[in-house]
Amino acid sequence: MKKLVIVGGVAGGASAAARARRLDEQAEIVLLERGEHISFANCGLPYHIGGDIEQRDALLLQTPASFKARFNVDVRVHNEVLSIDSAAQRVTILNRVTGQRYQESYDALILSPGAAPVVPPIPGLQNPRTFSLRNLPDMDKILTAIEQHQPKHATVVGGGFIGLEMVEALHQRGIQVSLVEMADQVMAPVDPEMANMLHQELVDHDVDLHLATALQRVEETPQGLRLQLSNDKVLETELMISAIGVKPEVSLAANAGLTIGELGGIQVDAQMRTSDPHIFAVGDAVEEIDLLTGQPALIPLAGPANRQGRIAANVIFGQDSRYNRTQGTAICRVFSLAVANTGLNEKRLAQLGWDYDKVYVHGASHASYFPGAHPVSLKLLFSPKDGKLLGAQAVGKDGIDKRIDVLAVAIRAGMTVFDLTEMELTYAPPFGSAKDVLNQAGFVASNRVTGETALVHSQALDDAGDDQLLLDVRNPGELSRTGTIAGAINIPVDQLRERLAELPKDKTILVFCQVGLRGHVATKLLTNSGFQAKNLTGGYKTYQAVNARF
Amino acid sequence: MKKLVIVGGVAGGASAAARARRLDEQAEIVLLERGEHISFANCGLPYHIGGDIEQRDALLLQTPASFKARFNVDVRVHNEVLSIDSAAQRVTILNRVTGQRYQESYDALILSPGAAPVVPPIPGLQNPRTFSLRNLPDMDKILTAIEQHQPKHATVVGGGFIGLEMVEALHQRGIQVSLVEMADQVMAPVDPEMANMLHQELVDHDVDLHLATALQRVEETPQGLRLQLSNDKVLETELMISAIGVKPEVSLAANAGLTIGELGGIQVDAQMRTSDPHIFAVGDAVEEIDLLTGQPALIPLAGPANRQGRIAANVIFGQDSRYNRTQGTAICRVFSLAVANTGLNEKRLAQLGWDYDKVYVHGASHASYFPGAHPVSLKLLFSPKDGKLLGAQAVGKDGIDKRIDVLAVAIRAGMTVFDLTEMELTYAPPFGSAKDVLNQAGFVASNRVTGETALVHSQALDDAGDDQLLLDVRNPGELSRTGTIAGAINIPVDQLRERLAELPKDKTILVFCQVGLRGHVATKLLTNSGFQAKNLTGGYKTYQAVNARF
Repeated sequence: MKKLVIVGGVAGGASAAARARRLDEQAEIVLLERGEHISFANCGLPYHIGGDIEQRDALLLQTPASFKARFNVDVRVHNEVLSIDSAAQRVTILNRVTGQRYQESYDALILSPGAAPVVPPIPGLQNPRTFSLRNLPDMDKILTAIEQHQPKHATVVGGGFIGLEMVEALHQRGIQVSLVEMADQVMAPVDPEMANMLHQELVDHDVDLHLATALQRVEETPQGLRLQLSNDKVLETELMISAIGVKPEVSLAANAGLTIGELGGIQVDAQMRTSDPHIFAVGDAVEEIDLLTGQPALIPLAGPANRQGRIAANVIFGQDSRYNRTQGTAICRVFSLAVANTGLNEKRLAQLGWDYDKVYVHGASHASYFPGAHPVSLKLLFSPKDGKLLGAQAVGKDGIDKRIDVLAVAIRAGMTVFDLTEMELTYAPPFGSAKDVLNQAGFVASNRVTGETALVHSQALDDAGDDQLLLDVRNPGELSRTGTIAGAINIPVDQLRERLAELPKDKTILVFCQVGLRGHVATKLLTNSGFQAKNLTGGYKTYQAVNARF
Repeated sequence: MKKLVIVGGVAGGASAAARARRLDEQAEIVLLERGEHISFANCGLPYHIGGDIEQRDALLLQTPASFKARFNVDVRVHNEVLSIDSAAQRVTILNRVTGQRYQESYDALILSPGAAPVVPPIPGLQNPRTFSLRNLPDMDKILTAIEQHQPKHATVVGGGFIGLEMVEALHQRGIQVSLVEMADQVMAPVDPEMANMLHQELVDHDVDLHLATALQRVEETPQGLRLQLSNDKVLETELMISAIGVKPEVSLAANAGLTIGELGGIQVDAQMRTSDPHIFAVGDAVEEIDLLTGQPALIPLAGPANRQGRIAANVIFGQDSRYNRTQGTAICRVFSLAVANTGLNEKRLAQLGWDYDKVYVHGASHASYFPGAHPVSLKLLFSPKDGKLLGAQAVGKDGIDKRIDVLAVAIRAGMTVFDLTEMELTYAPPFGSAKDVLNQAGFVASNRVTGETALVHSQALDDAGDDQLLLDVRNPGELSRTGTIAGAINIPVDQLRERLAELPKDKTILVFCQVGLRGHVATKLLTNSGFQAKNLTGGYKTYQAVNARF
């Protein structure tokens, strides 16, 4: 009879335990969790703070008792593994309730310790009004502090998933929120121009946004905290959430001599095996291999953790199961918007030095003539050589998850922008469009790859020289509502054919409309009439997103 | 300079015209439309009748004037093409306003005549209270009749897309509706047990449902119509919508000697070329090739029509563009439910005699602990040999379009059920689950393909013999709420391990729970303990759907 010991009882660990039991009824399975809870909904914590999830109990997906009854797993909460003796295949455990230390042997060990909030070396950070959010006790502390202090103002440091979710949660509780982010954008997985749509949404919800700003010092005051920022501003606040990021918990693994990867996570092979053949590791603590680059990556997300737990159990019980890399698909709600991404972003592609190009499309979440349609702003990254999809990002109120899910599968399948043009997606007016935004993006990108249409990017317009002319093909009413790009002349697309004589043949005409569609029609008209023309991808809407400053 | 003549100005024809102009500024493009409108939102017609789309104008996507201004296309509405002289490359046209006949020559001709409502040979069908719905004048007539007669009761004959949308539209206007359908289910693209969820939804909305019932005779009465049905019932109704189906409009093509396919559509090659090299055909009038079977299919949907129009224009203007088969992805709203499908259904697979199997999963549209999660009922069809995906159907209130879109792309990519287990989809509590219903379906189907878990289908339970035992592993409270399968014994899954002695080792135990998840745990427990066991896929919920009678 095999004995499996699992360290950590949340996503990866709990999945591994359940899967192990389904594979082997006789095995002894011990699940050691240093905290109070196993298998809780850690992704739901901010939503309970914000009130979306009303009942705290809803976050407790399994209890030690339910796990014992269902899976005959010996769950021991408040039991912390202190060390691993890999030679003897034995762990030393501290029972945090009794203070007792004891040992358990194992045939196979799975480490699922997760990732811990980063605590930067900022003076004053250790204070009773500063919180991080990783588990239910953290959440309870934040709720108690809100109850106790009834803060009017709180500050979130860090604009990643948890930071943004906490901004919204605090806002929903009627608290004025400042957000401090060291980078020049929130939500690092997407590129700055896409993040700018989130910045606008935050500002529209009265969030006091400090980008490119570091927290330098925290001081306690009678009313709460005083935060010294790198932009010379000082925030008086009553509560602070530190959500700077997480880092893999590897001390147990490192002390046992397991190989730690270059990014600081536990190194595992595709079977989730560490450098010790009897020890496996899964979840936020491990380094995964990126689907597209083949390089290590840290992807602290629940989906991969669950799948890895299952795979480790499969392997331990004799199946040839492999984790097939990761692509970092993720989504976050930011007030009324969703932001999602999959694959590589432009920042990463530039860093890698890969040959890539991009298009922007702003389509409708469903048929625009049916009520309730919202814009879907999509950025697509691809190889200009063969059109291979490299990454995608989307922002909007509705249908964002759907588009990124479809693209995640397309990227996984190695599809190209040409495949996007052929995608047969569900269409009825309440659900989609006959030409979905994904088909549209495919058309635009295909025309780029085949060379049928020359594109220009908003990011390159600053370099526009004297040999170039900016042409706004929108209607005058649109220009007076939204403004236009400095120096642009205006000929509405539907007058262009009659007014070609007004345009020069010795300059490159940089055409734009609101989202890129009429610009494409105008660009084709111009090039087919002997002009040199390029279309501004994503139109003025993308131009605004690129050039917004927060 | 090339001259392109296009017959039919809605989805396929309008797309072809716009694309042609973008490819060639000099070409002469003539668009002939026998009706009053081009490029109208035909998919939106029922929703204007029902009131979702308030403004009639919203349905008019383009006008002849706007199309002329934007694309310099010579649009002639009320101009019907009477005949094609393919040898002379010339069409004869009737101007329906002036009564004048005239001719136009062409270098290339695109036929986009669409499909017409089927009019069955039913006595009395031609009467002023019976309507079909294909275009704006049809819609206007229905609205006028509703206005004029203020009907309390209407009858829809035919339970396909338009029929169901009209049922809902009439219901939304406060009209009591009877639905008469000749087959034993509505929505032919899905299988009967999935359609049963729609039947329940219809009945829940007070729709008087007559399945497996033919309309035999229509009589006019002072109050409206009397409908004689094949089930010996008589319906007194005030308005009738005939939505039995559509058939390709091929008379023009047939009279010109173009090859008509075995299903009655215009035969085209992958470049949308008919048997005449100068004549192309697109949209509802043509036969497409099914992605999976390679056999002809009629798919009267807007998405394919648009893509085909684009492809025909590409080919005519010198690009090597090909229509890459069709998979019949579709969706329909039925009151609060959506129903969607892609690929082949079980009826078709059985007809083809292919080796297939199926699983049912009832997951949540997003994390079940986050408010607003609704069940997603998914049926997945696949090859039991290698797990290749063959088809999918889903019904539910939310997230149906997303799941079927993802599966449509997966099928297009030739993916397997194993790929589903690895899909990295967007997850945050408002949008998805760490293990999405698609991942779950992948796990269940993978276990079937590898042989790890034996499954039994609800459809096969009628044949359960004396050597089989039905075991309900739900909690007693659930049984008393929903009932159970006749003859089943009840041992809750969490007591099963302690009560194994109550079960026989010489019988095959057919295990079920509500949706299949606990059944799987129990089945694994039993087989790993030396019992013979099979899990009922989709659980009692699928059993109910299979056995419901309407």
